Amino acid sequence: NGSGAGADRRRTLAVIGGDGIGPEVVAEGLKVLEAVTSPDAFELVHYDLGATRWQRTGEVLPDSVLDELTRVDGILLGAVGAAPGAKDVPSGLLERGLLLRLRFAFDHYVNLRPSRLYPGVPTPLADEVVAGKEVDFVVVREGTEGLYCGNGGVVRAGTPNEIATEVSVNTALGVERVVRDAFARAARRRNKITLVHKHNVLVNAGGLWRRVFEQVAAEFPDVATDYLHVDAATIFLATDPARFDVIVTDNLFGDILTDLAAAVTGGIGLAASGNINPSGAYPSMFEPVHGSAPDIAGKGVADPTATILSVGLLLDHLGLGEEAARVEKAVLADIAARQGGERRSTSAVGDAIASTV
Amino acid sequence: NGSGAGADRRRTLAVIGGDGIGPEVVAEGLKVLEAVTSPDAFELVHYDLGATRWQRTGEVLPDSVLDELTRVDGILLGAVGAAPGAKDVPSGLLERGLLLRLRFAFDHYVNLRPSRLYPGVPTPLADEVVAGKEVDFVVVREGTEGLYCGNGGVVRAGTPNEIATEVSVNTALGVERVVRDAFARAARRRNKITLVHKHNVLVNAGGLWRRVFEQVAAEFPDVATDYLHVDAATIFLATDPARFDVIVTDNLFGDILTDLAAAVTGGIGLAASGNINPSGAYPSMFEPVHGSAPDIAGKGVADPTATILSVGLLLDHLGLGEEAARVEKAVLADIAARQGGERRSTSAVGDAIASTV
Ligand SMILES: CC(C)[C@H](C(=O)O)[C@@H](O)C(=O)O
Ligand SMILES: CC(C)[C@H](C(=O)O)[C@@H](O)C(=O)O
Repeated sequence: NGSGAGADRRRTLAVIGGDGIGPEVVAEGLKVLEAVTSPDAFELVHYDLGATRWQRTGEVLPDSVLDELTRVDGILLGAVGAAPGAKDVPSGLLERGLLLRLRFAFDHYVNLRPSRLYPGVPTPLADEVVAGKEVDFVVVREGTEGLYCGNGGVVRAGTPNEIATEVSVNTALGVERVVRDAFARAARRRNKITLVHKHNVLVNAGGLWRRVFEQVAAEFPDVATDYLHVDAATIFLATDPARFDVIVTDNLFGDILTDLAAAVTGGIGLAASGNINPSGAYPSMFEPVHGSAPDIAGKGVADPTATILSVGLLLDHLGLGEEAARVEKAVLADIAARQGGERRSTSAVGDAIASTV
Repeated sequence: NGSGAGADRRRTLAVIGGDGIGPEVVAEGLKVLEAVTSPDAFELVHYDLGATRWQRTGEVLPDSVLDELTRVDGILLGAVGAAPGAKDVPSGLLERGLLLRLRFAFDHYVNLRPSRLYPGVPTPLADEVVAGKEVDFVVVREGTEGLYCGNGGVVRAGTPNEIATEVSVNTALGVERVVRDAFARAARRRNKITLVHKHNVLVNAGGLWRRVFEQVAAEFPDVATDYLHVDAATIFLATDPARFDVIVTDNLFGDILTDLAAAVTGGIGLAASGNINPSGAYPSMFEPVHGSAPDIAGKGVADPTATILSVGLLLDHLGLGEEAARVEKAVLADIAARQGGERRSTSAVGDAIASTV
């Protein structure tokens, strides 16, 4: 399974297009994957999962499918989520039942989200904020714990005395493994890491994160460390994003910061992510940060760049670093050529990148 | 106590300057308060609280002080927090022991944070994002519940098997009162309200917030409602802040969003806040959103504008709406005059606003 395997073994890639624009952008991701690898490098197995599947069959993620997925080498996911007006999907059903179930079942404790402001990409930030600076950082978001674990409940539901709780669970083991992964990434990048938490209010979880962070820091004497409260981190993302190299943070803070990070580096149309199990014990899963965007589905106008960059992360994770670099380079060239401002179709973007990869 | 009292009764204002730049900015706030009200409108009682007090006496908030504060008409707070290098204050001691203790003891369930991009104020956002638009919204942040309640703990502390938890507690009563307050504010403003949560993952708390929001919405048929996940809300704050009128959200999301909101509307040097108990059963507390900024303390360069705007919120809460409007107008005029770019001293800003109020 996964990383470290030889470069010429045939690999199985599970493909979950999902709903809305999901299948459209995934098709372009696969186009680029095919163009950059040797023929038959990947065997693709398509899985029909998401809102549409649930609306048709009532199934979210059958155990047999989960079982099959356990044996693939990687997963490429588009996006899941129903169109408004379609048969109502209960809130959280697909998130908790599919996305998070996969992240937890496959122990994706590193949720990797690179943010890079490519030359020529429009940003909502003022020129003074970014001009002449390299905005290029990665958020290492913990992916299996914190408030996402699903621990909590409701008593006296629907009454005026209802009480609803959500429990953030943080274990030393869970925090340490992701913090160590983040430090290792910083050591391969610009040697700077920022812990983001809110330890002045969340004293229990924050105390654990800080202590572990300091312990692991001692193993990486060349990596400069920094700490920001999550509220302050949002300020810096808007006023000085170039200050960051690696950010490590918990599941919920990471969710929030990576959407903002995507916004300031050109939008979630460009934001890639990897749900990674670094040990390779389970398959890792790669997906764009954006959702299923039902409003533009079927029109062939969705930007597939985030999915194509996610394919790059997949290749890198599978040990195909050279191919991964070619994908990023081709995307960069394509983005630079976009400056004219004309809007291209989903497949035109995929074709262009696939042809230069 | 508090709102609704006659305009000419003498009121008691507790003043907590705090640490770092806190006392400096509070002095300017009081200057403006004095200038805008009739002589002797307020009796000021100064309280020495914060890191410096703790370092000297080991006390954070003596019960006798809390008891005295219960009987004042309002509280003006600067900022608390130690300078680095000074005797280490344990993480959370002042936050949980002073700020949050006051917010909870006085049931400050409305944490009100207006964000307005005044003409002439520099923003980190690009011109296209804000030009020709009115960025003017308020965040109504719940102030007594959620992850801030201090429910949680640590087991096996300091061992490799440590588990740290934080519990977000949300009650129907607590959510309803703040949501109703937010709707009432929207009805007095531009009739638009956005609920921010993460109900697709935090299904228990999110379900409660949504249900209550919909119930209260039925009482305000003229107010248009909207919902955003917290991650998406950060995107819109960076790419289209003019879309917001009133945002209502929980304690932690509100903490994060208001720092980002402050950043995009000119920085936390301008961000005012009120910790409000709308019933008047307890005194409300007004404070700038910024911290004690020990790096610039004592230099007379801190911007007192956020504190002066907080005085405006205090006046408004105490039923002195006309005076509150004069403060905001004087601040607006002063900000417009700042465009030259010269940096004025803390007291020069206070003097200028006090003289035109
Ligand atoms: C859809 C949702 C469960 C998910 C998350 O919160 O992690 C998404 O926002 C993301 O960032 O991948
Ligand atoms: C200092 C801290 C307890 C506080 C909070 O988190 O509420 C601050 O960030 C704020 O926004 O007022």
